[in-house]
Amino acid sequence: MAVNLPPPDPAALHPVPGVELGVAMAGIRKANRKDLLIMRLAPGTRVAGVFTQNRFCAAPVVLARKHLKNAVQALVVNTGNANAGTGKRGLEDAMAVCEALAAHLGCEPSEVLPFSTGVIMEPLPVERIVAGLPRALLAKDDWLSAAEAIMTTDTVPKAFSRKVRLSGGTAVVSGIAKGAGMIRPDMATMLAFIATNAQAGARELQALLQRVAERSFNCVTVDGDTSTNDSLVLAATGQGPAARTRRDLLKLEVAVGEVSRQLAQAIVRDGEGATKFVTLEVERGRSAEECRRVGYAIAHSPLVKTAFFASDPNLGRILAAIGNSGINGLDTGRIDLYIDEVRVAHAGARDAGYREEQAVAAMKKPEFRVRVLLHRGTARATLWTCDLSFDYVKINAEYRT
Amino acid sequence: MAVNLPPPDPAALHPVPGVELGVAMAGIRKANRKDLLIMRLAPGTRVAGVFTQNRFCAAPVVLARKHLKNAVQALVVNTGNANAGTGKRGLEDAMAVCEALAAHLGCEPSEVLPFSTGVIMEPLPVERIVAGLPRALLAKDDWLSAAEAIMTTDTVPKAFSRKVRLSGGTAVVSGIAKGAGMIRPDMATMLAFIATNAQAGARELQALLQRVAERSFNCVTVDGDTSTNDSLVLAATGQGPAARTRRDLLKLEVAVGEVSRQLAQAIVRDGEGATKFVTLEVERGRSAEECRRVGYAIAHSPLVKTAFFASDPNLGRILAAIGNSGINGLDTGRIDLYIDEVRVAHAGARDAGYREEQAVAAMKKPEFRVRVLLHRGTARATLWTCDLSFDYVKINAEYRT
Repeated sequence: MAVNLPPPDPAALHPVPGVELGVAMAGIRKANRKDLLIMRLAPGTRVAGVFTQNRFCAAPVVLARKHLKNAVQALVVNTGNANAGTGKRGLEDAMAVCEALAAHLGCEPSEVLPFSTGVIMEPLPVERIVAGLPRALLAKDDWLSAAEAIMTTDTVPKAFSRKVRLSGGTAVVSGIAKGAGMIRPDMATMLAFIATNAQAGARELQALLQRVAERSFNCVTVDGDTSTNDSLVLAATGQGPAARTRRDLLKLEVAVGEVSRQLAQAIVRDGEGATKFVTLEVERGRSAEECRRVGYAIAHSPLVKTAFFASDPNLGRILAAIGNSGINGLDTGRIDLYIDEVRVAHAGARDAGYREEQAVAAMKKPEFRVRVLLHRGTARATLWTCDLSFDYVKINAEYRT
Repeated sequence: MAVNLPPPDPAALHPVPGVELGVAMAGIRKANRKDLLIMRLAPGTRVAGVFTQNRFCAAPVVLARKHLKNAVQALVVNTGNANAGTGKRGLEDAMAVCEALAAHLGCEPSEVLPFSTGVIMEPLPVERIVAGLPRALLAKDDWLSAAEAIMTTDTVPKAFSRKVRLSGGTAVVSGIAKGAGMIRPDMATMLAFIATNAQAGARELQALLQRVAERSFNCVTVDGDTSTNDSLVLAATGQGPAARTRRDLLKLEVAVGEVSRQLAQAIVRDGEGATKFVTLEVERGRSAEECRRVGYAIAHSPLVKTAFFASDPNLGRILAAIGNSGINGLDTGRIDLYIDEVRVAHAGARDAGYREEQAVAAMKKPEFRVRVLLHRGTARATLWTCDLSFDYVKINAEYRT
């Protein structure tokens, strides 16, 4: 079902020195399903994180954000239950999981970052998670297995790796993500964990991650619903070369950025019910912010998304969406619209030379590009999104059954 | 398909003295289909209007807004083509229709208000419309026939009438509307025309209509897409009693408001693919504006809408949507959530006494109420919306085929 998203090749996923992965089937929501992941980090690892802007942020997000400043020893991730909309008890439950894992590891509960994903507003089955911890701690898993353990409605595990040559040697960057619906990251996507063995300062790492998030996870949307549990974490174990110079840090940022962009795009390719992967390029705006607004107005229009699904160049719907984006002083009489290389609209109206077969040919492909020229500045933005199909409705109408 | 929306009873639709209706089959997009409506207004009629905020507003909207200040003699409405995203030629085309009708009526083209609805970014078939005018001018139609003539994806014609006793006698208020998709009026819905034989001043009428729109058409949403052609027009022919006193104007406003609310709700009941009609009541906010934002965040969440469709009380999705509404300083730990009379969440978390069967029972009904208490003020807002079903996708994927 996913659009041009083959399963990861295990041989292309590099282990990260200083990171130990362990997975278990804890029966949190369903039996015989990997649903618990522990990621142990070597002493001295620096951890950066960015989290959801949803005000109903989940209990584990509250704790993870708080614990981030400590010497983080491990991450623990469960699927099947988001522990969101669970109030005070949710915080106690998330803390109980941290305490149980800390007891095994001989560290402080505040040195554990908890993450949850799944159904909202149901109590976390703490006992089952705690019972699963010893098995996950004994397991020696790879990144592919870790990617599988955090899937919910995902149909394909999402994992990518890069090597980057720094001045002191070659470092690796590996990352996993999950998410297929409730995807409009406002900081990070549902859950994504990236690690490198490079050494880097905590402050540099946090700044790097925020810039990367802006250009990767914060550029995708499936359905416009920002999740309560969005979290993106980057761990640098320091077991490899140091990124001390500006040049090294820049190279590390490029590598982390590539892994992040691939993970973010993988989420859209595997978007619930997706049959099309669409790149939206909005150019010549006054600011990147207004270009993003125009892009999201297009990406969130159910009418545009159903036209994508039907490969129907009913492209006036895109103009209508642009008109709805709330840009002050927008002169619609200057807007150009392209599907791939086909100019569909010029100066705000149908292009005289445009024939509909041209757009149909482009839209029938599983991937195409929508390009909007606002002609009022020099800024631009790129977003990635998917279509709205019968299966999106089916998946979400039947999610809990 | 529509939710609790029987076709209008012709006997309950009162003619409005001073308004003559004529309908024709002009073959604008499909043959043998009523697609052209002329509404002639007696001399001295006052006309008020509110129009879309979409910046890609259609050519007829540009002209209608401009012509509104003149002594309006007639409205002309076509379906099958929206004449939006058509640039300069679109304006010329809309004007050509005004000119042709004005020639028949012996008035100025600037005394005609044009309206169009249908596909965007295709040239208006002016010749077919002009050729249909004589037939529409000869016809003597009633309000039901007029409602039928403006339907596009609507499955039920929408028309309502009220009588209101003013100090000088009884006035009638009758109105029609169309619209089922691209519905998130930001001023008025797709097209709605209301007439009364009451006499009222132009300024009072315009102010009255704006207040009414805020509480009716601007409170509904099907898919969050504001149309390029939204128009709401109120004509007061003055052939009946005068609304001169404040009390009379207030009574007239209540009657126009009732007709508008019924038309607006009818649009949601007949929303594309709708199987549920949902009333959203957001209460105890700091301002009506923030209550509306919370309401729209719920109403526009595809995840909430698919849960409505499935009668699945996966109500954490509603909390997530509230968290996404972008309200500054919102304390999620105080929020209560009800489905009809069932308290589902209390103080931001699942209510201890709540059993899921209770919400299932409410949500299986074709109509139910979602009530959110923010507990941070005294303001409130009510919105009406529908679910997101397979048929929404089907209708919009196949709209032009």
